[in-house]
Amino acid sequence: MNAYRKYLVEFIGTFFLILTIGSTGTLNGSGVIPPLAIGGILMVMIYAGGPVSGGHYNPAVTLAVLLRGGMPKRDAVPYMLAQILGGIAGALAVMEFKHNMGPVPPFNFRIHDLLLSEFLFTFALAYVVLNVATLKRTANNSYFGLAIGGTVMAGAFAVGGTVCSGAFNPAVEVGLVCMKLTPLSNSWMTILANLAGGAAAAGCFALIHPKADRE
Amino acid sequence: MNAYRKYLVEFIGTFFLILTIGSTGTLNGSGVIPPLAIGGILMVMIYAGGPVSGGHYNPAVTLAVLLRGGMPKRDAVPYMLAQILGGIAGALAVMEFKHNMGPVPPFNFRIHDLLLSEFLFTFALAYVVLNVATLKRTANNSYFGLAIGGTVMAGAFAVGGTVCSGAFNPAVEVGLVCMKLTPLSNSWMTILANLAGGAAAAGCFALIHPKADRE
Amino acid sequence: MNAYRKYLVEFIGTFFLILTIGSTGTLNGSGVIPPLAIGGILMVMIYAGGPVSGGHYNPAVTLAVLLRGGMPKRDAVPYMLAQILGGIAGALAVMEFKHNMGPVPPFNFRIHDLLLSEFLFTFALAYVVLNVATLKRTANNSYFGLAIGGTVMAGAFAVGGTVCSGAFNPAVEVGLVCMKLTPLSNSWMTILANLAGGAAAAGCFALIHPKADRE
Amino acid sequence: MNAYRKYLVEFIGTFFLILTIGSTGTLNGSGVIPPLAIGGILMVMIYAGGPVSGGHYNPAVTLAVLLRGGMPKRDAVPYMLAQILGGIAGALAVMEFKHNMGPVPPFNFRIHDLLLSEFLFTFALAYVVLNVATLKRTANNSYFGLAIGGTVMAGAFAVGGTVCSGAFNPAVEVGLVCMKLTPLSNSWMTILANLAGGAAAAGCFALIHPKADRE
Repeated sequence: MNAYRKYLVEFIGTFFLILTIGSTGTLNGSGVIPPLAIGGILMVMIYAGGPVSGGHYNPAVTLAVLLRGGMPKRDAVPYMLAQILGGIAGALAVMEFKHNMGPVPPFNFRIHDLLLSEFLFTFALAYVVLNVATLKRTANNSYFGLAIGGTVMAGAFAVGGTVCSGAFNPAVEVGLVCMKLTPLSNSWMTILANLAGGAAAAGCFALIHPKADRE
Repeated sequence: MNAYRKYLVEFIGTFFLILTIGSTGTLNGSGVIPPLAIGGILMVMIYAGGPVSGGHYNPAVTLAVLLRGGMPKRDAVPYMLAQILGGIAGALAVMEFKHNMGPVPPFNFRIHDLLLSEFLFTFALAYVVLNVATLKRTANNSYFGLAIGGTVMAGAFAVGGTVCSGAFNPAVEVGLVCMKLTPLSNSWMTILANLAGGAAAAGCFALIHPKADRE
Repeated sequence: MNAYRKYLVEFIGTFFLILTIGSTGTLNGSGVIPPLAIGGILMVMIYAGGPVSGGHYNPAVTLAVLLRGGMPKRDAVPYMLAQILGGIAGALAVMEFKHNMGPVPPFNFRIHDLLLSEFLFTFALAYVVLNVATLKRTANNSYFGLAIGGTVMAGAFAVGGTVCSGAFNPAVEVGLVCMKLTPLSNSWMTILANLAGGAAAAGCFALIHPKADRE
Repeated sequence: MNAYRKYLVEFIGTFFLILTIGSTGTLNGSGVIPPLAIGGILMVMIYAGGPVSGGHYNPAVTLAVLLRGGMPKRDAVPYMLAQILGGIAGALAVMEFKHNMGPVPPFNFRIHDLLLSEFLFTFALAYVVLNVATLKRTANNSYFGLAIGGTVMAGAFAVGGTVCSGAFNPAVEVGLVCMKLTPLSNSWMTILANLAGGAAAAGCFALIHPKADRE
């Protein structure tokens, strides 16, 4: 009965994330604005919704938290669905605002660099999430949103728009495809790289923290 | 007797908010400075005044907090008056500093996009405020100002100056009209969209949090 | 015997503040870098030194804290001397790094706007300091440095380099004069405006907080 | 047995630090992106790994913490090795992403300014680390990552790319040499200046804090 509250929070957060990504553009590697705006909206939605749903807004993060044992198993699929629906709704809002959007920019990333960079920064993102938001020892800290939003900001600065589109998030990738900002043909690979990054972070987390700390 | 203290805090915070908005400009969609400056001054005024007045500085936020039951009813109108007076005073200071301000920039936003974007980001703002600043479970957190200021920063990056003027705040809209940065004729619609966003956030907050958590 | 520890902390913090101001320039109103760098270094020095000395790094802030009763009276003059010495030392380091510094930029601010803007943002700075760093009710918060650094960042964005040089700090003004970034002839007025802003903030703080809260 | 967990955390954090440095460039003094990205990734890695390893990611910081008595002596060398390996691995990832990297930019810093600026900002960095992350009085604060990352951001804005390459970190210097972003011939001097800055910060910390506070 209460679970829908969490799904609604995941929908809202992912909606504003994709709305901000699409509004500020994601494919212009030289710009300072998109990473600041995207990291910022993610941070605030995590602070707002984190205490209710955990504030994932990202199926790769949900996978990592699931593997780490940090959420009920039955929530995983509804979370991912809510995130993807939020991504699609956000893309629709962007298309309303930017009804004159131009053609798809040429997709000229090298595939193996795209996959490696999406893997690495989704790993970093999920690694930060697990460490700042799921340990009893640091519960009630006030930095969880800043740390998670800051990871996406740094990743977007480092590789977004130059090496890859900088999604680090399957729901974002779906939104980018809806907005025609990335071609459909490659998006499944990006999504796999994101999920692999999340899973790897869960494995790494288990290595770093003794079992007693994880309970 | 002690209420005037809160109204003074609301006046001061809104004054510096509009002073910063007008000084850095709000209608230049390509600039990185206004969103950083505006989000920054809002953040610091919330940290300074939040423990006294709640640090709204925004009639749409006051409406949301009122509907959520987070403030005494008798404070609502004086809060809004103090905010609007602060906005006007801030606009006067800006006009003193920029006595050579040019003509009103052409107002070429599409009305329904303007209304939707003002509604959405005022919703986001009030949603974040209610979640980070009015729940007992997360009382005494240190992120409330960062989260609220960050929301306005992200909204200003996403739609400010391109889809709408990015007020998200009726007191700011009044200040923009005083500074002739937005035409009077459309401002009532923006203000309605802001208030509707605040009210919608209060409704959403009630959906997300069980009654026990809201008390 | 232990007081020298506090003076040393004030010297170090002001040294790095002026070093960063001079290195990134303060008179270029269009730049995004100086406010971010200056707000950043102030924030980190406050977090590092605040628990020892209060982290003022600014005679106008020391005056405000003194008037508010937040520090021993005998520390006021040594604090200000340590801050001014730190400012001079920072200016010397900048001149070493920038040995080819060009001529003084033309000083074309309007005097009454300069005084008003220096007064207003020094007021804002001291108002934020007193509210986030001297109240028992919010002791042990983690936002004090972010709020204080953020105020200087926002003020530098709003008026620094366009309406005034954006010192908001007599020790910075001394450093700017040493670096020949502002003419000596007007600096006494800026310093008076800064001190008046600090004193006004102390008065405003007394209005806002009942006596019981201030003890 | 459990020590390898800490070394792994140091490796991961330094890897992402150098990956971000190399991806955003470090030698362009006019850019706003590298300092934001570098300060950001350092901040998030400190929040993620700090509770496990302390989150040094920097041999000069490890030296400072060691001299201050804030870590087991036997960890010092493995920490530094893990950091240097992380730096090399990060450099390899950057070279994969930027396989067409151009020739080494001309190295035209003045040697004594380079040494002084690397010394000063590594001192600032280690001074901030010791003050925000090793005192019992401020344990459990939520600002340690923001303060440390902010120091590197401010230093990079102030002197990075104009007076020195802005490493403030021997492991970063090793990574810069691997990426051919700085010449090998001068790097030993930079590394010595970094280590001297860290040692000086430990001495200064002992001056500022009475012995009782340091235990």
